[in-house]
Amino acid sequence: MALKSFIEAHPDSHFPIQNLPYGVFKPEPQSPARPGVAIGDYVLDLSEIAKAGLFTGPLLKDSDCFLQPVLNKFLAMGRPAWKEARATLQKLLSSSELTLRDNANLRLKALVPMNKVEMVLPMVIGDYTDFFASMHHAKNCGTIFRGPQNPISPNWFHLPIAYHGRASSIVISGTDIIRPRGQGRPSGDSPPYFGPSQKLDFELEMAAIVGPGNELGKPINVNEAADHIFGLVLMNDWSARDIQAWEYVPLGPFLGKSFGTTVSPWIVTLDALEPFAIDAPEQNPKPLPYLAEKISQNYDISLEVQIKPAGQKDSYVVTRSNFKYLYWTLTQQLAHHTINGCNLRPGDLFGTGTISGPEQDSFGCLLELTWNGQNPVSLNGTTRKFLEDGDEVIFAGCCKGDGYNVGFGTCTGKILPSP
Amino acid sequence: MALKSFIEAHPDSHFPIQNLPYGVFKPEPQSPARPGVAIGDYVLDLSEIAKAGLFTGPLLKDSDCFLQPVLNKFLAMGRPAWKEARATLQKLLSSSELTLRDNANLRLKALVPMNKVEMVLPMVIGDYTDFFASMHHAKNCGTIFRGPQNPISPNWFHLPIAYHGRASSIVISGTDIIRPRGQGRPSGDSPPYFGPSQKLDFELEMAAIVGPGNELGKPINVNEAADHIFGLVLMNDWSARDIQAWEYVPLGPFLGKSFGTTVSPWIVTLDALEPFAIDAPEQNPKPLPYLAEKISQNYDISLEVQIKPAGQKDSYVVTRSNFKYLYWTLTQQLAHHTINGCNLRPGDLFGTGTISGPEQDSFGCLLELTWNGQNPVSLNGTTRKFLEDGDEVIFAGCCKGDGYNVGFGTCTGKILPSP
Repeated sequence: MALKSFIEAHPDSHFPIQNLPYGVFKPEPQSPARPGVAIGDYVLDLSEIAKAGLFTGPLLKDSDCFLQPVLNKFLAMGRPAWKEARATLQKLLSSSELTLRDNANLRLKALVPMNKVEMVLPMVIGDYTDFFASMHHAKNCGTIFRGPQNPISPNWFHLPIAYHGRASSIVISGTDIIRPRGQGRPSGDSPPYFGPSQKLDFELEMAAIVGPGNELGKPINVNEAADHIFGLVLMNDWSARDIQAWEYVPLGPFLGKSFGTTVSPWIVTLDALEPFAIDAPEQNPKPLPYLAEKISQNYDISLEVQIKPAGQKDSYVVTRSNFKYLYWTLTQQLAHHTINGCNLRPGDLFGTGTISGPEQDSFGCLLELTWNGQNPVSLNGTTRKFLEDGDEVIFAGCCKGDGYNVGFGTCTGKILPSP
Repeated sequence: MALKSFIEAHPDSHFPIQNLPYGVFKPEPQSPARPGVAIGDYVLDLSEIAKAGLFTGPLLKDSDCFLQPVLNKFLAMGRPAWKEARATLQKLLSSSELTLRDNANLRLKALVPMNKVEMVLPMVIGDYTDFFASMHHAKNCGTIFRGPQNPISPNWFHLPIAYHGRASSIVISGTDIIRPRGQGRPSGDSPPYFGPSQKLDFELEMAAIVGPGNELGKPINVNEAADHIFGLVLMNDWSARDIQAWEYVPLGPFLGKSFGTTVSPWIVTLDALEPFAIDAPEQNPKPLPYLAEKISQNYDISLEVQIKPAGQKDSYVVTRSNFKYLYWTLTQQLAHHTINGCNLRPGDLFGTGTISGPEQDSFGCLLELTWNGQNPVSLNGTTRKFLEDGDEVIFAGCCKGDGYNVGFGTCTGKILPSP
């Protein structure tokens, strides 16, 4: 029989008892931030559950990890603690368990309506790495910028290419994004263009949250890498294509990305995603031994992007993709990242790169959807080559189970004009 | 008359009263880290000076910034507080001031012999950015990899190119560096090389420490940028050339760099460097208005790299360069970094990129010095194309004043074999 909670979750809810994603929230604007899990239309305040002594397992009993304003300490504890917390919380929230259900006082303190809370970044992000793991995205970008012959550079099929991103400008869903100013490629002998970006784009990504990580000089084996991935969020890697195109040779993306990156507030754990695991695409050529894994899996996560055009009330779907289209798995990304001895710390963020599917209506950014502005997308009587001031971009992601969802909620941001 | 301290500093010392660089140290291996300044052969413990109530200026009087295990809080306070601290400490340490000089008890607590202390990273580094600001380095690398026609890409003269580096693997001088493993470019139809890097290199850089920084969306004007730079350290941006060459297209350096970056422990402030300011090179083409500064200055800092080959007792100079060779100034780097709205935080690190001079004996890395291994350097009967296991690399940097130095000490690291 399906697990059920005494807290009603609508069949369309992203947050039934099967999910229990982690976030950090403030019940009131002035109150200190504390960890919580989403359950139906509520947030369960884990600091209250900890203070009530209800984490009784051996690893969490004496820990203050849920009395912190960020999840880093919990992330550092690793999968045994994550599994213990999940088991405790699923039991506590189940319809047959009386401890919380029948304690009106504790329920009042510990269950906060989700529409009342302010979500904040759930962890201190020491380093943010962005991968380039979708073959369809790599192929489309290569074709747009270098033509259809050999659009994908030869290294791509041998290693999960990535670059270091900017951690300081990662913001929580709902934060406005200010259109960046910068330089664009000069035409002829003119000086470079300078001004607000004229090619502002979203990138549909997901991102993994790392814990516990490794010491400098000690790589993580690909078959043990899953123990260092707590869970996933949606991520919008906003990109200024004109700034990026002019600056990126030879050292890669910089100001074309670092003005803002938006993450969704709820971290869906790998344990909650496990029922939605599917085989990863076959890799040809075979990866080198340090990237060859016994089980190579993706997750079947439906992804969708809507744009709410400036001045309009409704939003419109511009693309539908899926996490399963990634060529390089999360575990391969992590093993590759550490093979040179690089150390990962709890709370580090791994972006997947834009997740594009094989078909035109599954491309993960406007660069691909409009083919660099050549074919504008239609939105209820208006069109877009790239984003305009006032546009809001809304990502959603969800796994469809048998009678329930394991969802990510949304990841949103609105474009404000340059100053 | 020259400022003099009651603490003797040998004329060759890097740390006379004119310098007073900041670091964080542990007096004993088990004691908590605390901020200090170097003075002659001693470290002045700023936590003891603060506890003794000797910071009497308006900004520092009631601050606990020197009771922290890192300098970030002090960095966040900005130039007025930095100037106040410098004035207080120069007075306290001057030969004519009795407060500390004649208080034997306080001297015993606050002045620790430098050879007894352990230096640690002086700040939490939120983000580390590495620039590419030496024209000679850009030209040499371009010539080696793409040939002598147009070795420098056209964007280089319009903007200070940079990439995001890895913050987690920044280590303090003296930390051993483990030779990274990774992939190298395949030859013919073979799979890529995999194993210990065969082209391990140093890169002679300096790095700026940022404070107070800016809010997301609010660029810093180039003419106010110096107020956001606390000081400089030496930096060795260790590089695995074979890993880097294979991975870096199209997203830039990643595992070829992220296995370790070494910084020197003493942050020399811009105030201490001011007597050594010199005009920056003329820039042609003229930079765009947001990069055009009223005063465009570098510093005359002599830099030297020695290698102590594995198994030998002495080290040998392999290159001499100077900070003044940088084409893009620190202030232009900072203004560029924020023009898109990217936020900087106190403690962020800006590497300059390899500082090469115009002549062959002033090139800043083995890639350039040996022309990618074609012309090995000679070291007392042995030769090096790239670094071998057991080699120690020692950077030093110093400004020569009239009868005194303002120096950086050394930045060292020894190569250990791959596991």
